[in-house]
Amino acid sequence: MAKEITSRGENYSQWYLDIVKKAGLADNSAVRGCMVIKPTGFAIWENMKDQLDRMFKQTGHVNAYFPLFIPKSFLSKEADHVEGFAKECAVVTHHRLMNNPDGSGVVVDPDARLEEELIVRPTSETIIWNTYKDWIQSYRDLPLLINQWANVVRWEMRTRPFLRTAEFLWQEGHTAHATKSEAVEESQMIHELYARFAEDYMAMPVIKGAKTANERFAGAEETYTIEALMQDGRALQAGTSHFLGQNFAKAFDVTFADNNNKEDYVWATSWGVSTRLVGGLIMTHSDDEGLVLPPKLAPTQVVIVPIPKPQREIMEVADRIVTELLALGISVLIDKDKKKRPGFKFAEYEMKGVPVRIGIGKRDLANGVVEVARRDTKEKSSINLDGIAKYVEQLLVDIQDNLFNRSKKYRDDHITEVNDFDTFKEVLEDKAGFVSAHWDATIESELKIKELTKATIRCIPHDQVKESGKDVLTGKPSFGRVLFAKAY
Amino acid sequence: MAKEITSRGENYSQWYLDIVKKAGLADNSAVRGCMVIKPTGFAIWENMKDQLDRMFKQTGHVNAYFPLFIPKSFLSKEADHVEGFAKECAVVTHHRLMNNPDGSGVVVDPDARLEEELIVRPTSETIIWNTYKDWIQSYRDLPLLINQWANVVRWEMRTRPFLRTAEFLWQEGHTAHATKSEAVEESQMIHELYARFAEDYMAMPVIKGAKTANERFAGAEETYTIEALMQDGRALQAGTSHFLGQNFAKAFDVTFADNNNKEDYVWATSWGVSTRLVGGLIMTHSDDEGLVLPPKLAPTQVVIVPIPKPQREIMEVADRIVTELLALGISVLIDKDKKKRPGFKFAEYEMKGVPVRIGIGKRDLANGVVEVARRDTKEKSSINLDGIAKYVEQLLVDIQDNLFNRSKKYRDDHITEVNDFDTFKEVLEDKAGFVSAHWDATIESELKIKELTKATIRCIPHDQVKESGKDVLTGKPSFGRVLFAKAY
Repeated sequence: MAKEITSRGENYSQWYLDIVKKAGLADNSAVRGCMVIKPTGFAIWENMKDQLDRMFKQTGHVNAYFPLFIPKSFLSKEADHVEGFAKECAVVTHHRLMNNPDGSGVVVDPDARLEEELIVRPTSETIIWNTYKDWIQSYRDLPLLINQWANVVRWEMRTRPFLRTAEFLWQEGHTAHATKSEAVEESQMIHELYARFAEDYMAMPVIKGAKTANERFAGAEETYTIEALMQDGRALQAGTSHFLGQNFAKAFDVTFADNNNKEDYVWATSWGVSTRLVGGLIMTHSDDEGLVLPPKLAPTQVVIVPIPKPQREIMEVADRIVTELLALGISVLIDKDKKKRPGFKFAEYEMKGVPVRIGIGKRDLANGVVEVARRDTKEKSSINLDGIAKYVEQLLVDIQDNLFNRSKKYRDDHITEVNDFDTFKEVLEDKAGFVSAHWDATIESELKIKELTKATIRCIPHDQVKESGKDVLTGKPSFGRVLFAKAY
Repeated sequence: MAKEITSRGENYSQWYLDIVKKAGLADNSAVRGCMVIKPTGFAIWENMKDQLDRMFKQTGHVNAYFPLFIPKSFLSKEADHVEGFAKECAVVTHHRLMNNPDGSGVVVDPDARLEEELIVRPTSETIIWNTYKDWIQSYRDLPLLINQWANVVRWEMRTRPFLRTAEFLWQEGHTAHATKSEAVEESQMIHELYARFAEDYMAMPVIKGAKTANERFAGAEETYTIEALMQDGRALQAGTSHFLGQNFAKAFDVTFADNNNKEDYVWATSWGVSTRLVGGLIMTHSDDEGLVLPPKLAPTQVVIVPIPKPQREIMEVADRIVTELLALGISVLIDKDKKKRPGFKFAEYEMKGVPVRIGIGKRDLANGVVEVARRDTKEKSSINLDGIAKYVEQLLVDIQDNLFNRSKKYRDDHITEVNDFDTFKEVLEDKAGFVSAHWDATIESELKIKELTKATIRCIPHDQVKESGKDVLTGKPSFGRVLFAKAY
C-alpha cells in the first residue's frame, strides 16, 4: 500500500491528500468544500474532543447548545465582526420546496421566502450574546462559563480536508465576566489549556503568543494563539482564545448590576479549536509510509498480527496479550483475516498509523518471544512474552515522548533569526519555518511583508525579548522580534 | 419557586413549559422554532448520548460525520422520501452577503446564487447513500455499521421545546448489509436497544411495535417504534428503527459483488433518537413541584444543603460525605451559598429534579444523623452518618426503580380495550392513553379514525394476540388489536 503514497519530498501537498485518503480519514462529498469524516478520522476527533471536554469541565465550564442559524441583522451589530464573518457564508432564504410543476423533481417554493434571511453560523458570538442578554442581570449571574460543540460553515474558496473546509466541527467557548481582569485571565487560562492539550496529547509543540491587531479575531481586543509548524515549514494556527472586551456586550446591550448596584457592560471571551487539529496532527508526525499517530489519541494503540496463520497456539497467546493490554486500558485489536499475508497487513497498519504492532510467529513463540514494532521509528525488537503488556505500556509512553521530541527538534531547528530582508526572503524560500525578525509594529510593514513574501506574523511570542532593533523591511525602530511564516 | 409552576391539572401544556423554563433546561431563541439548550438540559442530553454511544459501540457501530447540506436533487431520488422530507426545510440559495449599497447593514449578494440549492439535512439517508456508493464494492465491505451525532432541521410550524423544534440534535444510524435478513435483524436489534435504553436509563416504559404502512418513515419498508405514554395520556414516539429494503441502494445505485461475484443491491437500515427524548423524560416523571429525573441520567444525583448555615463542623461532615459519594461514582454538590435560606434551596432543588437531597443540621449532627429527602416521593428520613454513602447508593437504585414502576403502572392503567366506536371516542376524550382496538388493516379506516378523533395508530404491538374481531369503526374483519392514541 505504502507505494501508493506520494513522498513528502516529491509533493508535500499530494502526500497529505494521499494519507487522508489511504488511511481512511476523510472523503470528498457531493457538496462543494464539505468533507465526509470517515470512521477512523472521526475516532481521532472523538479522542481529542473527549480530552478537551474533560479539561474544559475541570476548569468549571459547562456545555450548552445554541441555534445553527443566525438572523442576518445580528451579524451587523458588531462593526468589526460583520467585516470578518458576513462575507462568505451559507444563506438560507426559503423554508419550503415544492414539486416542480413540470413534474421534474422539486424546486424552491417562491411563496416560502423568509422575511429575514438566516445565516448558517460561521461562529456564534452574535446569537449567544443576544441570548446572554436574557441570562445576565446581576453580578450573581457571572461568570458564565459556557462551551458548545457544534458545526459551523464558512464558504471557503480553496478547501483541503480537515485544514480548511466549508463546514467543520469545533468547540466554541463563550464566557461572560464582571471585570476586565477576570475576562483576560480566562482567555489566558484557555490559551494555556490549548497549549497543554497540543503538546501533551497531540505531541505537537506550539509557540504561544499574541496576534497582531491585523490578525486578530474580528471583534476581539486581544487574540492569543498557539502556532505549530508542519513538516513543510509552514505554520498552522492551532487554537485561538480571544479577549473581546465589552464589544459584544455593547453590541447586544448586555449589562449587569455589580455588588454596589452600579450598571456596567459585561466583559467577554471566546475561544475555539476545530477539526483542523486533525490535519495538524497528520502533518506533524506522519511519514512517507503513512499516518503516524501519538498513542494518546490513536483509536487503536496496538495491533496483533499472527504469523503466518492464526493457528490455535498463536491465537491463544494473542488472546492472552489482548486481555492483559485491555486491563491496562490499552486499545488493541487482533487481525484474524486469513486471506491477507502478514507483509500486506504490516504495510496496512503502518499506513493507518497504529503506534505498536505485535507479530506472533511460531518460531518466535518457541523461544518465548514476540516481535514488537514501533510505528514512529519502525524499529523491531524481540520481546519476552513474560511482561509483554508492561513493556508495551512503557513503549506507548516512549513513542508519545519521542514524537513530541522529534517534532520539537524539527520546530526548534526551523526558527531562524534574521536581520535583513534579503536573508528574510532567502530563509523563507530555502529553509522555510518561522523567521524571527524585528518589526516596527505598524500594519503597513506587516502588510507589505505579506505582499512581498506571503509570510504573515504568526504571533508576538510571549517569551519575546525586549531589545532594540530595526524592522526587517522598513528599518524603522523595533523593540522586539516577532515570528513570521507562511501558514496554512 | 414551586408556586410559579402551573399545575398539571390546571394546564398540562403550560406546566411543561414552566418546568422547561424554571428548571433551566431550554430557552427560546431569536430564530423561529429553534431553542437554546441550556447547560442543565444539555447535561441531561449528554448523559443520554454517552450511554447510547456506548451501547452502539458495544454492538459494533462506529461514528462518522457527513455534510450538513444535501444537494436539492438528492431528495428527489427516492420517490417516497421526497414526499416525506422535501417539503418544510431550510433552503440555502446563496453563499455570500455584501454591504448594503445604502450603507445599512448587509444584504444577500445576488451574484452569489448557488447553481443548485442546498437543503439543510432533515435526515441524511440521501447524502449518506450517495457516499456509500463509493465505499461499497464487494461483500467484504459489508456490513457497514455507521452512526452519526448531528443537528438536523425540519421547518415545523408549531414547535415546543425538545418535543418539536425546527432544529434538533439526534443520532442517525445508517447501516448497509449483504442480505435482507441481516438488515432486518439489525433494525430489530436497534429497536430492542432503544427499548432497553428507554426503560433501564430513562425509567420510561415503552411499547414495542411496528408502524402501519401509513405511519412508516418515508422510504422504509418497515418501521419499528417504541411508544411511551405521557402523564396527560398522550403518546410519544420515542425512537424508530427502519428496515429500508433496497430502496436507497436502488435510488443511489449502490451494488456489491457477493461471494459468488454476483452483483446485487445493498440492503439498508436507518434509526434515530433525538433531543425529543429529553421532553419525554420531563413529561414522564415530573410533578407539580418541578422536574423529576431518574438518577441514571441526572446531571447532579445528590445535593447537600447545610442547615442553618455552613459552619465548620457541618462543612466537615458535608465534605466527608462528598468524598464518600464520589468514591462510589455518585455526582454530588454542596450548596454553600450563605445568602439563601435552606427552605428556598429545598424548593429550588425540587424544581431542578435532583434525586436526593441531604440536609445537615447542627441538632441532627449531635445525634449522628442527617436528613435524607428523596425527590420522587418527597419522603424524608433521618439516616445514620455511618454508612450514609452506601445508603444513598441504594436509595438511588430504589428511586430509579420506583420511577419506572410508577410510570409503568400509569401506562398499564391507561391501555383500554374497546370494541365499539362510541366507547373509543369516550375513552379518548375522558381517560386518554392507549386505546386497544381492532382494525381492518386498511388505510381508509386508519385515516377516517384519525380525522374523527385525532388518534393515530401508534403501533401494531409485537405482543399482539392474533384473534378475530371487527374494526372498531368499519366493522370489517380484523385479526388483532392495534394501539391508538393521540400523540405528540
